[in-house]
Amino acid sequence: MTRVGVVGATGYAGAELVRLLSGHPSVDLTILTSRQYGGVPFADIYPAFSGVVELACETFSIDAVCEKADIVFTALPHKLPMGIVPDLVARGKKVIDLSADFRFSDPGAYEAAYTAHTAKDLLGRSVYGLSEVFTDRIAHADVIGNPGCYPTSVLLPLIPLIRAELVIPSTIVADSKSGVSGAGRALSVASLYSEVDESFKAYKVAAHRHEPEMEAILSGIAGADVNITFVPHLLPMNRGMETTIYANLSRDIADEDIFACLAAFYAGRRFIRISETGRPPDTRNVRGTNYCDIGFVVDRDHRRLILMSVIDNLVKGAAGQAVQNMNIMLGLKETAGLDMTPFPV
Amino acid sequence: MTRVGVVGATGYAGAELVRLLSGHPSVDLTILTSRQYGGVPFADIYPAFSGVVELACETFSIDAVCEKADIVFTALPHKLPMGIVPDLVARGKKVIDLSADFRFSDPGAYEAAYTAHTAKDLLGRSVYGLSEVFTDRIAHADVIGNPGCYPTSVLLPLIPLIRAELVIPSTIVADSKSGVSGAGRALSVASLYSEVDESFKAYKVAAHRHEPEMEAILSGIAGADVNITFVPHLLPMNRGMETTIYANLSRDIADEDIFACLAAFYAGRRFIRISETGRPPDTRNVRGTNYCDIGFVVDRDHRRLILMSVIDNLVKGAAGQAVQNMNIMLGLKETAGLDMTPFPV
Amino acid sequence: MTRVGVVGATGYAGAELVRLLSGHPSVDLTILTSRQYGGVPFADIYPAFSGVVELACETFSIDAVCEKADIVFTALPHKLPMGIVPDLVARGKKVIDLSADFRFSDPGAYEAAYTAHTAKDLLGRSVYGLSEVFTDRIAHADVIGNPGCYPTSVLLPLIPLIRAELVIPSTIVADSKSGVSGAGRALSVASLYSEVDESFKAYKVAAHRHEPEMEAILSGIAGADVNITFVPHLLPMNRGMETTIYANLSRDIADEDIFACLAAFYAGRRFIRISETGRPPDTRNVRGTNYCDIGFVVDRDHRRLILMSVIDNLVKGAAGQAVQNMNIMLGLKETAGLDMTPFPV
Amino acid sequence: MTRVGVVGATGYAGAELVRLLSGHPSVDLTILTSRQYGGVPFADIYPAFSGVVELACETFSIDAVCEKADIVFTALPHKLPMGIVPDLVARGKKVIDLSADFRFSDPGAYEAAYTAHTAKDLLGRSVYGLSEVFTDRIAHADVIGNPGCYPTSVLLPLIPLIRAELVIPSTIVADSKSGVSGAGRALSVASLYSEVDESFKAYKVAAHRHEPEMEAILSGIAGADVNITFVPHLLPMNRGMETTIYANLSRDIADEDIFACLAAFYAGRRFIRISETGRPPDTRNVRGTNYCDIGFVVDRDHRRLILMSVIDNLVKGAAGQAVQNMNIMLGLKETAGLDMTPFPV
Repeated sequence: MTRVGVVGATGYAGAELVRLLSGHPSVDLTILTSRQYGGVPFADIYPAFSGVVELACETFSIDAVCEKADIVFTALPHKLPMGIVPDLVARGKKVIDLSADFRFSDPGAYEAAYTAHTAKDLLGRSVYGLSEVFTDRIAHADVIGNPGCYPTSVLLPLIPLIRAELVIPSTIVADSKSGVSGAGRALSVASLYSEVDESFKAYKVAAHRHEPEMEAILSGIAGADVNITFVPHLLPMNRGMETTIYANLSRDIADEDIFACLAAFYAGRRFIRISETGRPPDTRNVRGTNYCDIGFVVDRDHRRLILMSVIDNLVKGAAGQAVQNMNIMLGLKETAGLDMTPFPV
Repeated sequence: MTRVGVVGATGYAGAELVRLLSGHPSVDLTILTSRQYGGVPFADIYPAFSGVVELACETFSIDAVCEKADIVFTALPHKLPMGIVPDLVARGKKVIDLSADFRFSDPGAYEAAYTAHTAKDLLGRSVYGLSEVFTDRIAHADVIGNPGCYPTSVLLPLIPLIRAELVIPSTIVADSKSGVSGAGRALSVASLYSEVDESFKAYKVAAHRHEPEMEAILSGIAGADVNITFVPHLLPMNRGMETTIYANLSRDIADEDIFACLAAFYAGRRFIRISETGRPPDTRNVRGTNYCDIGFVVDRDHRRLILMSVIDNLVKGAAGQAVQNMNIMLGLKETAGLDMTPFPV
Repeated sequence: MTRVGVVGATGYAGAELVRLLSGHPSVDLTILTSRQYGGVPFADIYPAFSGVVELACETFSIDAVCEKADIVFTALPHKLPMGIVPDLVARGKKVIDLSADFRFSDPGAYEAAYTAHTAKDLLGRSVYGLSEVFTDRIAHADVIGNPGCYPTSVLLPLIPLIRAELVIPSTIVADSKSGVSGAGRALSVASLYSEVDESFKAYKVAAHRHEPEMEAILSGIAGADVNITFVPHLLPMNRGMETTIYANLSRDIADEDIFACLAAFYAGRRFIRISETGRPPDTRNVRGTNYCDIGFVVDRDHRRLILMSVIDNLVKGAAGQAVQNMNIMLGLKETAGLDMTPFPV
Repeated sequence: MTRVGVVGATGYAGAELVRLLSGHPSVDLTILTSRQYGGVPFADIYPAFSGVVELACETFSIDAVCEKADIVFTALPHKLPMGIVPDLVARGKKVIDLSADFRFSDPGAYEAAYTAHTAKDLLGRSVYGLSEVFTDRIAHADVIGNPGCYPTSVLLPLIPLIRAELVIPSTIVADSKSGVSGAGRALSVASLYSEVDESFKAYKVAAHRHEPEMEAILSGIAGADVNITFVPHLLPMNRGMETTIYANLSRDIADEDIFACLAAFYAGRRFIRISETGRPPDTRNVRGTNYCDIGFVVDRDHRRLILMSVIDNLVKGAAGQAVQNMNIMLGLKETAGLDMTPFPV
């Protein structure tokens, strides 16, 4: 059994890590830290875990974490992980960071979107944890920059098609819709029930911090600068993210060939489910699970491809993909601890 | 007081007409018909109207309707209105039809999307009831084909910009999201609470019947064939529709000039609210009202305009615009009976 | 036109007052104050009011309020109104306070549930604003303690039956369920969307501050101490409150006589709708309106009466009843500005 | 591996059985039948199961079921199971029936609430499947009448206290609130999204068919006729049921002793979680799981006990308890296949 710890366990992504890791057959969850809830039993904060998780939260201490855990998940707001991940790595720990701090290989790109980077040395060693795409590098990494939820939903359907040069990058538009849990447990008027319920709107139009993250990865795949138009929207629901992507095809290509391109790229990868029939994917079919369901339709009038993907923003978009990356790093079965069946309703 | 009747009063659009007409200062609601509920007090079907609406439903009879009403709203599934509107018109009634039957001037376009048209003669006389755009023709019409909800949300923001040749029509993508009430009160598994709650998905991708309706109107405005890519999605909420439109600008143009184009087109039209600031419109700000709120952002990297509109699909997208059209036809103030303040939450 | 002001206009109850007063035919809304948003246009905070409400918020100043308004609504957290209402009254203003500060005639009862009372002198003059019950006293009052939402939903169905001695007070149990907007716009983890969505639970079981308020009024009606068991629950919805009350009947009594007792008490009062048929009232039939719908069933096995009431917690449970009280104080029609038709869905 | 079949697999309870059984470590799911979807792959009806469940639905045939399965779950509307369970039993199968058909030992009680019973002979052999209460009898049964969701939520908290004679049966009131999935996948206007969303109401007040079921079991426990007042309500959410029970205590008893009574009764039973602190249980803490969380508060003014329980109506209230009963019947660990961790949000 590998010993694992979660730093920042009481936010939503942290708590979701606890859910997944507490049921994982090959790891022992040994330490949970919290800035706010030191000393409080975790199940007092999340009574769902009563009788399931016996640990109490601890205030973060590098010594305690290093003593108790071999692999550390950091689920903190960006900027904080930079301050502790270098120490963890220096002490021989493997780290999977769920913030943006280790997602960019180019510190300039990070700094343009976030803030000054204080651990640039590590950026060369950290690997972008898009599990199905960078599997080999993840297997050998000791620091993972775990992808954002929006980038996961945009990149997974697009990467095979861009690699195959089937779509024209300058025409890509990604229209995403996210459940509210993506905003986390931080207090803000915009996250109040009464502000979200029976409401739908765009936000940070063409200005979301996840856009440079997507563009950096897509440019790497394409071997040239890729710029996309990205508009996130807020859904009146808790978990779930849908992205509809519009892109002009570079040439006439049959539906079967588009399916074949996607299916070949993700062959043998259990968490990617591609619909052959044009049936649009539905967020509820992936809720609580690590699946990414992908569908597509071609609008032949304009030779425009319409790609649709759905994920659970807290699972494949955060904690689930992080555990998948851990599995890859440890040489476990990719699906270990992640093979729950989705709810029918 | 003008006497008005609603044929098909017990569907959601019909019931919304009853709500708006029962509070209208210049009309008397005199007859409600229903295929299912003949003889049943309307307030037994919708107890919200207890103490407000005293009428009982009647089984449809052309004689009863013509005797009791001067203006008739038909809120029936498409195909049924074709069978009765010609008779109503022949007997001197003004008709506002909420189905698709009288929205197309070209019967071929209707027949391609729906079914054989049996009242083609009337198509030349019927007017597309997009209130702010075709006001003068509406004022003199005796048959109105009231617009669909999706077309209303797509056309209102686009028409001024297409008329001013600021956007390139072939690049237009409309990504719409609708509340469930748009599907009406008909029984279907897809409309069950447990199927929709905490769920989000696209449907009828690039294949919705409202697309030809939009294209017919946009082509008329542009003076050339306009084809767009249109993808509707289903929101886990009751009322409200948001459309995000992507289109390449035909030339470099300042944000102020885009605002000016929209503002000039809708000058003096109370129900169109255009945001100058880029703040995305939110469906909850229009719920229960006849407003259409419009916002926009330019993605300068691609010279791509992002337009956003929100309406209440049952009001501006159906019953409210129908009442607005009646007001225009009767020479009343456009806002009569429609000046309710939206809820803050 | 009477000039009215709202002190504390940016909370949910305050904003709902703005909605109702801005559409009221006999008043002019002249001043809105806010502790947080001085100088900000009200429609920037609640864009729903764009084009409807032109006022900007002001930081509270007693002079400004007194200069601009004849009637003042105070919609502040309890304790704050005590500090300003005496001044307003001293300067000849009529005040309708939506907090608990002026709901109790006995300062001890207030202090047991809340905090030290610093304006006890006014308690003798203030009137409990349960509009249909204390109409005459309200008509002559210059300070109204506007009822809480839970008490309104419990008291309206119970008072006629207690007055008629049809139920045994010691057996009364009130099981209430409230939408989240009742918690207001204050930041708290418990009010976050992700904490409430798809969740239902009791809270403050037999310990809610509204219980002494109910008991004080019921005791006054009964002429003897009345203690009830009251359990509030939180509903995953925004507006709406349902209360199911259980009480043993004091004697065998026919359903018709129970209906007659309720109907006689509320004869001529438009906002109280009593169901004769046993059909349980539904919160959606009163949403956005000032109605209180009441239904009942007798469980003959136990001679136990089951009463059900529904209100919109922000309207009849707060701002709507406050406006109704203003109407009564000004000698206007009770329904002025409050005669909106509920939504069918 | 035991071979299991689900008759009626496409309703919500049936699909939930498929979810739980497909992930169960000790059984093979070998046959799914459906009246509507013969020949259709199960994952086409519920795409959530794509890649998880490979079976196609079959039209029911007693021979096929008996050939392929050792244990059969019947998840059909009441009345249908009576027609097939006797045959299954005659052919040596163990049956767990989720309808009401085998819940009553007294056929008269069944017939008063439902319809004529055509398999009365089996009633003497069938066991009421309240897993924690009738464990021993379940272990030796070959027909289980699996409890209804409401009875499960009412009986589990009440039975220990009634057995210990701590509450006065004639004073019991149970106020229950259920998510919509309890109504199943059958088409009805009342189950449409737009009818339920942002709505809350009681239904079948003191007249629900589950009430005789509860009373039969409680009477057996008490050794005397027990009649309760039961009022169900419909919640605007999908899964989850909360019941608040009010009952007068038979004598003064400390909170600790109430806790001890409950804790002793359920000692060692993992799915019953009892709160010692008075913190009310929340439906979201049990969603998707087989837990029943119980809390209580004493209203000392009236010596009235307030018990609260929450379950997932589709799991502990239906499919989960059915699987738990199978585990008991097969001598497996009670929690096999049911040990999923709940979601934190």
